[in-house]
Amino acid sequence: MVDTALAELLASLPSGVLGAAMRAAVFPGGKRLRPLLLLRAGQAFGADPQRLRPLSAALELVHCASLALDDLPCMDDAPFRRGEPSLHRRFSEATAILAAFALLAKAVGEFPALLRQAGLPPAYCEGWTGRLSQLVETLCEGQQLDLARHGTATVAELERVHAGKTGAFFAFAAELGAFVAGADPASVECVRSFARNLGLAYQVLDDVADATGGQGWEGKPPGQDARHGQCTFVTLLGVEGARQLASELLSTAEACLAPLSRRAEPLLGFVNHVRALL
Amino acid sequence: MVDTALAELLASLPSGVLGAAMRAAVFPGGKRLRPLLLLRAGQAFGADPQRLRPLSAALELVHCASLALDDLPCMDDAPFRRGEPSLHRRFSEATAILAAFALLAKAVGEFPALLRQAGLPPAYCEGWTGRLSQLVETLCEGQQLDLARHGTATVAELERVHAGKTGAFFAFAAELGAFVAGADPASVECVRSFARNLGLAYQVLDDVADATGGQGWEGKPPGQDARHGQCTFVTLLGVEGARQLASELLSTAEACLAPLSRRAEPLLGFVNHVRALL
Repeated sequence: MVDTALAELLASLPSGVLGAAMRAAVFPGGKRLRPLLLLRAGQAFGADPQRLRPLSAALELVHCASLALDDLPCMDDAPFRRGEPSLHRRFSEATAILAAFALLAKAVGEFPALLRQAGLPPAYCEGWTGRLSQLVETLCEGQQLDLARHGTATVAELERVHAGKTGAFFAFAAELGAFVAGADPASVECVRSFARNLGLAYQVLDDVADATGGQGWEGKPPGQDARHGQCTFVTLLGVEGARQLASELLSTAEACLAPLSRRAEPLLGFVNHVRALL
Repeated sequence: MVDTALAELLASLPSGVLGAAMRAAVFPGGKRLRPLLLLRAGQAFGADPQRLRPLSAALELVHCASLALDDLPCMDDAPFRRGEPSLHRRFSEATAILAAFALLAKAVGEFPALLRQAGLPPAYCEGWTGRLSQLVETLCEGQQLDLARHGTATVAELERVHAGKTGAFFAFAAELGAFVAGADPASVECVRSFARNLGLAYQVLDDVADATGGQGWEGKPPGQDARHGQCTFVTLLGVEGARQLASELLSTAEACLAPLSRRAEPLLGFVNHVRALL
């Protein structure tokens, strides 16, 4: 469903190399967690996923653009992504950067129209489009912090980096889904806290998978992160300590949903999905 | 006036390296031609420049972001910009890319609010925000074509590259200014054609300045483009031939404004400014 919405959003790409690179940055995809979070959060408050589908795809464009940048030689220098050579190796560094730039512009520039199609009252479209651009700034800050770590960090610093990357993005996706579905402010806040903790747990488990060779995890060969001497939750806490932290974060995430009782079911599926990776 | 608007738009940047790089990408600036074109086009149809000022600054953010990318080692590999070391040399490649990304997100994400503040009826905000993201895609395509030229091109190919870069951007700025000021469709089209030709003329003169050592032109040391063996209007036509082409484009630009008679005065000032560089 998300992939269909992505294909629709990318229907009118430029015909040459740039368009091909933009498409290759998005397909084949990863787990599409951010759009799914938005859809599930909307579902929790009665919104038809079909209605939120195009909006959810815009978040995935931002994510794909940020991955293309993260993989660049001057950033994480990652040779692989989702089981394929990373975008700058399939095209060129310049083309990967331009494709990421164009994808970001499309996601943010189409956001007002997609918010309206999702049924958000026009008075809120301006504010949420501004918030999307703030999220991008937060993601860039998180990546900047990540690059400046020079291989050493405390657990608190690492949590700060990932709160600014995965955490903030998961929280945005879930909050937007709940808001568009008409959830009351207290419920929106529950969903937001849930997603932030889920995002952190996911990041911790990403480090565990990298260290233990978990198959198919984001399509990166095991050891890609550790090879660069990066400080991870596993280098700081060990594999068992990191698993323990992830488990605690998942419990916290679940607890955030308690006030929503049965409404939370579509979101609890997420926790179980991530817990299965423990 | 444009710089004040830019400072306001960048008032709440992140405090660390990323925020510093975002600011350094924008200040000190170049000629601010795109915002000025928007303001003058608006003035031609009676819009107070103060009202359009914040909107004009968003265009300059997009321009500054694209310059930061153009200068990267994997693109034009330009060591200087506006008389200073280029952004990736003052910070790092990664930081320059992240700053450009965050500036682009801010420009596009704040666009709906800025359009409203400029007095555009809400019904048009969504469409113009979408058009801004299409402009960014066109700029990226132009840069991609430019990089793929491998040093050889015909005059027609070179015009196509620059039509997709400077030409499309100038046209967007002028068209938006006229539209927001309430110009009728035929007048908007005049202003758009004017700006496209002016943009091409400007690009041709940029090549002339690079070849002849024109001082202070975009703050690049003379010969920076030619050093990379790039094919330019000067390598194709010679200095005099390029000057002749620029002069013809400026005459065409002027002719586009004829139907507007005295209304066109704020825009004719631009032609005279660029002609003085001949």
